[in-house]
Amino acid sequence: MATKQDHPDSNLFPHATGPAKAIVDAHQAEQPLKLFSGWFCPFVQRAWTVLEEKKIPYQYIEVNPYHKPDSLLKLNPRGLVPTLQYDNKPLYESTVICEFLEDVYPDHSPTLLPKDPYDRARTRIWTDFCTSRIIPAFHRFLQFQPTDDEEGLQGVRKEFLDKLREFAQEMDEEGPFFLGSEPSLIDFVVAPWVMRLWVFDHFKHGLGIPEHSNDAAWSRFRKWQKALEQRPSIKNTTSETEHYLPIYQRYADNTAQSELAKATRQGKGVP
Amino acid sequence: MATKQDHPDSNLFPHATGPAKAIVDAHQAEQPLKLFSGWFCPFVQRAWTVLEEKKIPYQYIEVNPYHKPDSLLKLNPRGLVPTLQYDNKPLYESTVICEFLEDVYPDHSPTLLPKDPYDRARTRIWTDFCTSRIIPAFHRFLQFQPTDDEEGLQGVRKEFLDKLREFAQEMDEEGPFFLGSEPSLIDFVVAPWVMRLWVFDHFKHGLGIPEHSNDAAWSRFRKWQKALEQRPSIKNTTSETEHYLPIYQRYADNTAQSELAKATRQGKGVP
Repeated sequence: MATKQDHPDSNLFPHATGPAKAIVDAHQAEQPLKLFSGWFCPFVQRAWTVLEEKKIPYQYIEVNPYHKPDSLLKLNPRGLVPTLQYDNKPLYESTVICEFLEDVYPDHSPTLLPKDPYDRARTRIWTDFCTSRIIPAFHRFLQFQPTDDEEGLQGVRKEFLDKLREFAQEMDEEGPFFLGSEPSLIDFVVAPWVMRLWVFDHFKHGLGIPEHSNDAAWSRFRKWQKALEQRPSIKNTTSETEHYLPIYQRYADNTAQSELAKATRQGKGVP
Repeated sequence: MATKQDHPDSNLFPHATGPAKAIVDAHQAEQPLKLFSGWFCPFVQRAWTVLEEKKIPYQYIEVNPYHKPDSLLKLNPRGLVPTLQYDNKPLYESTVICEFLEDVYPDHSPTLLPKDPYDRARTRIWTDFCTSRIIPAFHRFLQFQPTDDEEGLQGVRKEFLDKLREFAQEMDEEGPFFLGSEPSLIDFVVAPWVMRLWVFDHFKHGLGIPEHSNDAAWSRFRKWQKALEQRPSIKNTTSETEHYLPIYQRYADNTAQSELAKATRQGKGVP
């Protein structure tokens, strides 16, 4: 077994790079609202994009997961990121943080949840679908170990594509975002994994979406994916691919030690 | 393997009994808001208690899970309960339904979520704790198979008690409910499993909470449990124990075929 010193995730690149570095640098000044972050963490990116979208003043604090600062541990003894410090009190759970930011800054566009109660509820159902269906299927596919069992690989690939297609079929016809012309909670909750779809090209010989198909759901999916990739809040909280690579190499080898990686190995969902 | 006809869950008692029967009988008249229900289902009971609490007019429709009515399948092809029909549109996912009822009937007390954004977020964190931590631990304990491995049984018992105690430590000091004198979303989301704690007396030689301990968390837990058990909306949506018994016998034998039972066998959380 690895000791703490040679923990397989411990040679993590220490800070954000590329477009994300500029945003981090611009958010170092002391602010009452603090985001305890990991530049690489997709759950952090959910909250981070919402802070950026709504132009909320915040201080970005990079957390080294192997040397967690006391300021974080005092707030949240488990030391997980994202943790938000608000009025000297802690908040965690990335979707809870997103809904909280909406509640505190309802007049800062975009509005994360529609006003109509039925549409709000439907938004919550498909937001939950991302966390409970799409992300676990992403990780079962990514962490699948190549053996002689090629059928097994096809099974986890098909499961992931089926979830994406089911999701795409529920999108507003025009879009480009899930609910229409403006992004909502659904888009920000799943965007970090959309920005990481290149891992399947790199590690699994491609994601497997039929490229030239006329299937309406896949056309809609591609339009949506492009809109997310071009959205400044999402693009600019993303670091350079080369620094994600060693992290996702360990997922692809199924040796990553994150809570999500371990849950996936145990057959569980998002912890 | 069991065929559909001798499905191990198919000899389910067909309708609510005891206090719940009176409520079902009083909600047979046609209403625009319809609750597709199973009298025995704890996820249904979440939505059902909120309908009762807020005195919202609704029609109760008992669904035989082995002969699902077309009216349900047209709304929700998976045919799961609870499904809510609202304005001829479907809603599902029990916590989403509860938040929806709050959004549509904000002036009907009790208020499920505090007005203050931080308190709302904290309510969401502990509501999620019930679904993602307490209920899976309840089912791992209940479905644990007695072998020579007595330590394994103690492990799943301890995991469940640890989660309950962690939860109790977060309660308002006075209560009796989680957030204070009035119940909130947290209480209604976990109450159905509190009403089923007798299963551990019946199948596992007791739940194992120290009965005469002066531990403040367990004292607070007992006060809270009593308040839930006496709350009319919770008590009166509960049927007679004898009719739950064959259902929970199959959980205790680990042969139940519900989505939750299967997920627990696979080591997963609430599906």
